[in-house]
This record gives sequence, structure tokens and C-alpha cells, in this order.
Amino acid sequence: MKELEQRILKDGRSLPGGILKVDNFINHQMDGDLMCACAREIVRLFKAEGFTKVLTVEASGIAPSIFAGYLAHIPVVFAKKATPKTLDGKFVTKVHSFTKDRDYDIIVSKEYLSKGDKVLFIDDFLACGNAGMGIVDLCRQAGAELVGMAFLVEKAFQGGRRLILKHMPSLRIESLAVISALGDGTISFAE
Amino acid sequence: MKELEQRILKDGRSLPGGILKVDNFINHQMDGDLMCACAREIVRLFKAEGFTKVLTVEASGIAPSIFAGYLAHIPVVFAKKATPKTLDGKFVTKVHSFTKDRDYDIIVSKEYLSKGDKVLFIDDFLACGNAGMGIVDLCRQAGAELVGMAFLVEKAFQGGRRLILKHMPSLRIESLAVISALGDGTISFAE
Repeated sequence: MKELEQRILKDGRSLPGGILKVDNFINHQMDGDLMCACAREIVRLFKAEGFTKVLTVEASGIAPSIFAGYLAHIPVVFAKKATPKTLDGKFVTKVHSFTKDRDYDIIVSKEYLSKGDKVLFIDDFLACGNAGMGIVDLCRQAGAELVGMAFLVEKAFQGGRRLILKHMPSLRIESLAVISALGDGTISFAE
Repeated sequence: MKELEQRILKDGRSLPGGILKVDNFINHQMDGDLMCACAREIVRLFKAEGFTKVLTVEASGIAPSIFAGYLAHIPVVFAKKATPKTLDGKFVTKVHSFTKDRDYDIIVSKEYLSKGDKVLFIDDFLACGNAGMGIVDLCRQAGAELVGMAFLVEKAFQGGRRLILKHMPSLRIESLAVISALGDGTISFAE
């Protein structure tokens, strides 16, 4: 998606260690117009899959996901990183965060993920694929059908797509901006 | 806001300990259409204040906030509960979570909150006012002007509004649904 690639080139920064800093428009400060445009493209790409639920992980996945739910008029569920008092039965899986360098549980209530759901997973980043693998596991536990995954930004050189497709070879994965390399202050997109 | 009150009566549940469970349309599973309608009302209420930035706290505040940012075409910043690798200078304050019963830090990058910002804080719940007081402190540290606070749901019997107004007597606080009492399975709204 040209609009997102141009914004990454304009406002993103390549930092040492394969980190792309986009926290002025995606994952700390957020641009609502851009998030809505990204969601519109995701809904267009996955419309034919007939998804009935959007699933994301708090917190940076929520903005594009809620626009996708709004545009498609379907519910959006965000997996939580802590269990609130009000949550009874739950599915739990462990995820390793690349940017925060620690393991954490992600949790979805059994009330909001179940057999019969056709799930589209949306997140801000596809890097090593750990959050995606957590979602694969949560959907498997719930008996829900995972129909696709959509990411704003994919760091292709970190192998996340390969990892997920190893476990679900026929899963459709779409990323709106695919980065092939992050150099010393340079950002390269895949052709 | 009638639409929100009716949804709370239809899908919300009053639980022991003053807890209102609304996790099937606000804070775990989310209804994008309702979140957009709430944001529209918040933008209408605060338009005259000339806010230039929406500030919220991850994760449940993000959905209404990103719609408000989209509708008003201004940036949305969410305060974080953990510090990612990509964040340098930051403002930090401590907050007590009522529903999770623990203290945690909330963090905003110095890049995204500063003197000259006219801040509208948006969150899902006003209960004891702890998150709100954290926002007051972050804005004070940054030298930003806090022009108002908007909440989807206020639990009036938990004193949050009083606490915040004690520190900022002239602050405008608006809640779209004000709950006067939660009984054994009953939910009462303020007149």
C-alpha cells in the first residue's frame, strides 16, 4: 500500500537491531486517517473470505482492527496481556515479544472466541511471527477457523511468515508494507 | 447518550464489588459502530475547546480515541504500561488499577506530549479516577494543557470525578453514561 510505504519512509526510523521505529503514527502516537485507510484495504483484501470476527492483540493492533470491524460491521476482540477480575473461562497461550524482549501470556475469554467464528487476525507488525503463532494456538484451542492474517508492516527478514506458514501452509497472510531490509538509517521495501 | 445506556442495560452485567462487566462490547470484544458513535458525541461535546491531541491509556481507551482522532483529524497518543526498546525520553506516573487491583506505571514519550498541546483525555471508564489523575500528572510534567476528559461510562458512586475536580476544579469532564448505582444484577443511571 503506497500510502503506508510513503509514510514509513517519511516518518519511520531504522534503528540498530532490526527495529523499525514508527511510534509517531502507528504504535504510540497514531494517525486515525492512516489507520482507517489501512483497515479499508485489509477489509477489501479479505472480504471474500467471509470473516465474522476480527481478532487482535492489545495494544497497537487495536486501532486498525476497530476500523476494520467498523467498516465490515463485525465484532473485534483483542487478546489481553493480563487477566481482569471480570473474566471467567479463558484460552491462554504464551508469546515472546521481540521489541520488549520478554515472554507474556495472551488471553481470550471463552465467551468471545468459539467454534463457528471465522477469524481474521490483524496486527501492526509481522516480525518473528510469535504473536501470530499465539493466535494460531488460541484459535485451535477455541475450535475457531482462522481465515487470514493481515499486518500493517512485515519485516520479511525476520522469518515470521515462514514460521506461521510452516504450521498453517494454506493460511492467507497479507502485509500492507513489506520491508526487505533495514540498514543504517535506510529502509528497503520488497518488490 | 441513550444508545450507550441502552446497550449497557441490554449487554452489561452488574457483578459483586461494584464491577460493571461490559466486555462484550467495550473492553474485550468491541463494537466498532458503537465506539464510532461514542467518539462522534465526544468530538461534538468538546469541539469548542479546540483540542489538538487525544490522549488515552492502553488498551480499552484506544477504540473510542482513534475514532475521535479520525473524526477530528488530530493525532491520538496512548500512554503505555510498559516501555518498549524504541522509546527514549519519557514522562512516567504511577496509577492504581481498580479492576486489576495493582499499581502500574503509565508512560508517554517526550516526543508526543509537550507544551503547546491542548489535550483531550478519553477513556472507557471513570471509576476511582486513578487513570485520570495519572493523566493530570503526565500533562503537568509535559507542560501540556489538559482541556477536558471524556469517558464512555462513569461509575458516579466511586468518586473519581470528585477526586479529579479537587485537583483541577475548572476541568470539564463528560461521561456518556453515568451510573448512579450497581445493585444485585441491577444497573441504575443518574438522572
